[in-house]
Amino acid sequence: MKFMRFEHKGKVGFGVLHDTASIRVYEGDMFAKPVPTKQTLALGSIRILPPCVPTKMVALWNNSRIQIATLKRDTPKEVLWFLKPPSSFITHGEAIVYPVSDTERVVLEGELGIVIGRTCKRITADEAREHIFGYTVINDVTSQDIVKRDPTFPQYDRGKGFDTFGVFGPVIETEIDPMTLSMRAYVNGELQQDFPVTDYVFNPWQIVAEIARTVTLYPGDVIACGTTLNAAPIKPGDTVEIRIEGIGSLANPVVAEQRARASMPSRSRSDLAA
Amino acid sequence: MKFMRFEHKGKVGFGVLHDTASIRVYEGDMFAKPVPTKQTLALGSIRILPPCVPTKMVALWNNSRIQIATLKRDTPKEVLWFLKPPSSFITHGEAIVYPVSDTERVVLEGELGIVIGRTCKRITADEAREHIFGYTVINDVTSQDIVKRDPTFPQYDRGKGFDTFGVFGPVIETEIDPMTLSMRAYVNGELQQDFPVTDYVFNPWQIVAEIARTVTLYPGDVIACGTTLNAAPIKPGDTVEIRIEGIGSLANPVVAEQRARASMPSRSRSDLAA
Repeated sequence: MKFMRFEHKGKVGFGVLHDTASIRVYEGDMFAKPVPTKQTLALGSIRILPPCVPTKMVALWNNSRIQIATLKRDTPKEVLWFLKPPSSFITHGEAIVYPVSDTERVVLEGELGIVIGRTCKRITADEAREHIFGYTVINDVTSQDIVKRDPTFPQYDRGKGFDTFGVFGPVIETEIDPMTLSMRAYVNGELQQDFPVTDYVFNPWQIVAEIARTVTLYPGDVIACGTTLNAAPIKPGDTVEIRIEGIGSLANPVVAEQRARASMPSRSRSDLAA
Repeated sequence: MKFMRFEHKGKVGFGVLHDTASIRVYEGDMFAKPVPTKQTLALGSIRILPPCVPTKMVALWNNSRIQIATLKRDTPKEVLWFLKPPSSFITHGEAIVYPVSDTERVVLEGELGIVIGRTCKRITADEAREHIFGYTVINDVTSQDIVKRDPTFPQYDRGKGFDTFGVFGPVIETEIDPMTLSMRAYVNGELQQDFPVTDYVFNPWQIVAEIARTVTLYPGDVIACGTTLNAAPIKPGDTVEIRIEGIGSLANPVVAEQRARASMPSRSRSDLAA
């Protein structure tokens, strides 16, 4: 099933993609036996929201075998991760705001997203299977020059943390084997990245188990499994898309932050509460 | 005024420290003209909660002049920061859980905490003054061996992100000049760190303005301004304390994670919603 969250007539709800043009509305807790209602809504009548409200987004660095081989990096001995702040979260259709006054090189990064379904800490990879709610599409947008420009401190959280740089959704697919999936990234319709989940050093269950050694994971928390070669530069005016067949398409326009001082936050504080 | 959050008879509330032994209960939004009630509660009758519910905690690296001079580091050209996950947040009196199976060197780090009061993005340091709600006490607990052990990727977010490693509170002082303050850190009553806010390279207003270049800051978001020399090792059985005269004392016992597999998360998902 493909879960989505939406706003309709000023109210936030969630449901399941019913056919290509409509959504079946559900009630209750998305992660604890949600109940279908009789209501369906046309996709054209709703505003799509990020499909869940993570308390955190954990994102992996250096998890692609072909990237490691090509760049002659060391294969990581453990899952290496950073955090993307909630203020960065947007979903399908929303604009990626390019902070033109702060950075000169922004890239897309297509990735598989894991959505946690049950609170977990200190679990095995095998137990992780039953703590995963489903899978989503991620674009881990990154300012590469900011990450690298201080020689003493790599600024991952900042370079990857700009408002609108945490792109995920629009659906969470709950009934799919992630090992069958491939991530494709496009800029203006041109293919930039194409790699299978089997290229990941750590598979989704290992990733969840390793991260949950350190942090408690909550329902709705999201893990970005890492990207591969050819993280493509993007610029204002582009349309970027990450596509995972079997899950969906995550497409976003890129716009310049026109007047930096006048820019408004993309979300209010209350949007970040479940 | 010293704001606190608490649980009393199963209900979450907030108020202002009334005298050394009681709290005046308030109603409404802590950040938007909260209203005092006639109710007071004895401190002994409440469970102290973290004083706010941050959507993110941003923490600075390398912001102490004396540390920079002593370690012969470069003075940072810009505010360098990482994120601590909400799953790590605890407050005064709660146990810091030492993950004995994962790390060999955990240290305390005493720091000034800034609490945001109004949503902001792209503001000047001068404007930042009116967007700060108040100041709190922070212990940025850190596993130093995890931060350093992978030569290709410094694991700040993980080494500083363990459950219970984001210690702050118990109060937010809203009427104090931060430039007059000093942070002192103690292990079992012995002084380990003692440094003034004036030792910071970037002052609180500069810090807020610089961070808000990248991320929208929301009411309740917390910024840890950075530590200094002598981040002292801690071990199970210790009691650690960070004290800022004029704000308060943040004291916590350190306990071993007894049986890793059986450990329970410190908070439920709903505790992370405001």
